Amino acid sequence: MLQKSVQVNQNKINFYFNASFKQLKQLVNVQSTFIITDANVYALHKSAFKNWKTIVIAAGESNKNLATVQLIIEQLIELKADRTATIIGVGGGVVTDITGFVASIYMRGVAFGFVPTTLLAMVDASIGGKNGVDWNLYKNIIGTIRQPSFLLYDTTFLNTLPELEWQNGFAEIIKHACIKNAAMFTMLEKVNPAALKKNKLQLNQLIQKNVQIKMAVVKNDENEKGERKLLNFGHTLGHAIENEYGLSHGHAVAVGVHYAALLSQQILGFKKAEAVSNLLTKFGLPTTFSFNTEKVMQMLQMDKKRQQAEVHYILLEKIGKGVILPIPLKDLEKMYTQLS
Amino acid sequence: MLQKSVQVNQNKINFYFNASFKQLKQLVNVQSTFIITDANVYALHKSAFKNWKTIVIAAGESNKNLATVQLIIEQLIELKADRTATIIGVGGGVVTDITGFVASIYMRGVAFGFVPTTLLAMVDASIGGKNGVDWNLYKNIIGTIRQPSFLLYDTTFLNTLPELEWQNGFAEIIKHACIKNAAMFTMLEKVNPAALKKNKLQLNQLIQKNVQIKMAVVKNDENEKGERKLLNFGHTLGHAIENEYGLSHGHAVAVGVHYAALLSQQILGFKKAEAVSNLLTKFGLPTTFSFNTEKVMQMLQMDKKRQQAEVHYILLEKIGKGVILPIPLKDLEKMYTQLS
Repeated sequence: MLQKSVQVNQNKINFYFNASFKQLKQLVNVQSTFIITDANVYALHKSAFKNWKTIVIAAGESNKNLATVQLIIEQLIELKADRTATIIGVGGGVVTDITGFVASIYMRGVAFGFVPTTLLAMVDASIGGKNGVDWNLYKNIIGTIRQPSFLLYDTTFLNTLPELEWQNGFAEIIKHACIKNAAMFTMLEKVNPAALKKNKLQLNQLIQKNVQIKMAVVKNDENEKGERKLLNFGHTLGHAIENEYGLSHGHAVAVGVHYAALLSQQILGFKKAEAVSNLLTKFGLPTTFSFNTEKVMQMLQMDKKRQQAEVHYILLEKIGKGVILPIPLKDLEKMYTQLS
Repeated sequence: MLQKSVQVNQNKINFYFNASFKQLKQLVNVQSTFIITDANVYALHKSAFKNWKTIVIAAGESNKNLATVQLIIEQLIELKADRTATIIGVGGGVVTDITGFVASIYMRGVAFGFVPTTLLAMVDASIGGKNGVDWNLYKNIIGTIRQPSFLLYDTTFLNTLPELEWQNGFAEIIKHACIKNAAMFTMLEKVNPAALKKNKLQLNQLIQKNVQIKMAVVKNDENEKGERKLLNFGHTLGHAIENEYGLSHGHAVAVGVHYAALLSQQILGFKKAEAVSNLLTKFGLPTTFSFNTEKVMQMLQMDKKRQQAEVHYILLEKIGKGVILPIPLKDLEKMYTQLS
């Protein structure tokens, strides 16, 4: 178990890499700890939850809503969880998002930690303190920003990861490379995806690298006043099409990344749009998707990144250097229409 | 309009005393402001809300729940409220509690302010940053701590205040006197309640004094690690009987204050239990209530002030000096049985 800590404002976050889920009991008081997981993770790893008070929610983004929050809170009350409780989310991004939110509002806030079980959650969703639930098609429209006390990484969970989930994780890894790390972009261009998935050492290094990239941004701008907006690269269009068309998060982001690269080419003279598109394809990700511009513009009206009539769009100057550009909704509509 | 500011951690809170509701438009951008009020306040002051985007919720503690939160959020989305929005709660404690909570979680947090319209909200409920909603009988079991940007005090709202609401306000004022301010206790002993209600100058001074008392405590201990617990004086038993027996908040707290004074006598040799009881009675408040000890103990199991098998109880050493004492639930049960 390799411990690294990052300080974000008043909060110290402990990352335990190369760890085993069994070591969780060294980190918390079992008696006052409550695990939240979903039906899929629970079914795959049932014996791991023995001796833990466990709340199992239905799996999938469609259950990331206030109704599930209420169900969890009812069970916490029933289990007599008090202010000394620690709540631990064991699962993918849906589980960690909802766990962080519940922990932020139960009794006005209790401690929490995460055990991410998907590549996407490991490299992105479970880190940075953003949590929340959806309302209809609006993703994370309800939530808070609050940091977990710790994250425990056990990559044996990836042994049962479906192909689509691998793709979802790599979409965010490619996103990180595009906005912050040209060396990682080059490495990803060279690597064989199938071999990488089987190489635990390389995989652990890649995960740590991505945590490092994201936390360096979050540390300086927890509340997303500036630099943190870069992490939304690919997510403006991505979020707009994800729920509307029922795409997986990674597929939606991949399409968003591709279009953002094309906009970067058009607006900033970015030269590597094709390299970005090739890398996405190599990791099994889609790059184009036939969407209805009108519907997308309607979703952008409610995007959290919108301020009045502009969207803060993330573009690339070059590989490894993302920039934030306010684009009027009207101009965006024109460009989407040309590109789609 | 008299402006006073208090700094709580990173947040500056502006208090506008002796103000008029009409002055609200000087404080915010009308276009990006969304008012939340309840059906009672709206019916009584309909014309005041003209030209404001207003969300009206059903009145009463029984609507302080996640279902109402969801209704409000749906309307905010429909009204296209974005991250630059300011949400303003105009009403009593239920409205300000729910407004503060919605503002904490909508798009991961937007700015908010309050216009308290009841004495209770002016001297207590709307200040200090605690917000939240109930689940069944458990008061404020869901919520956050987050400070409003401003509070505007317009005491003309009190012209239509029902007698029960005056009593609710005075219960918290007496609470503040008991734990923190012997001089105010003496003043309240001398004053004629009917005359005080009509004397706007004296009333405004009393309100400001109470804001000052509460904010001095909150400023030093926003997250209730220590001193802020004092403000729970009368609220341990109070909360336990309030929803269970459908009492008003002030009546429940008055009973809680009386019992806490008796416990203080028994445990700490407090000498003024009778004076406390007389003062409550003078302001029309009850002091005794026949409750079921078993049911109360069941509620205390879920009180946020409980930690494992103890409750952090607030007692009085003398008038103006509250203290915190951990009391085992078992001992408390015995004492309640003896006293009831």
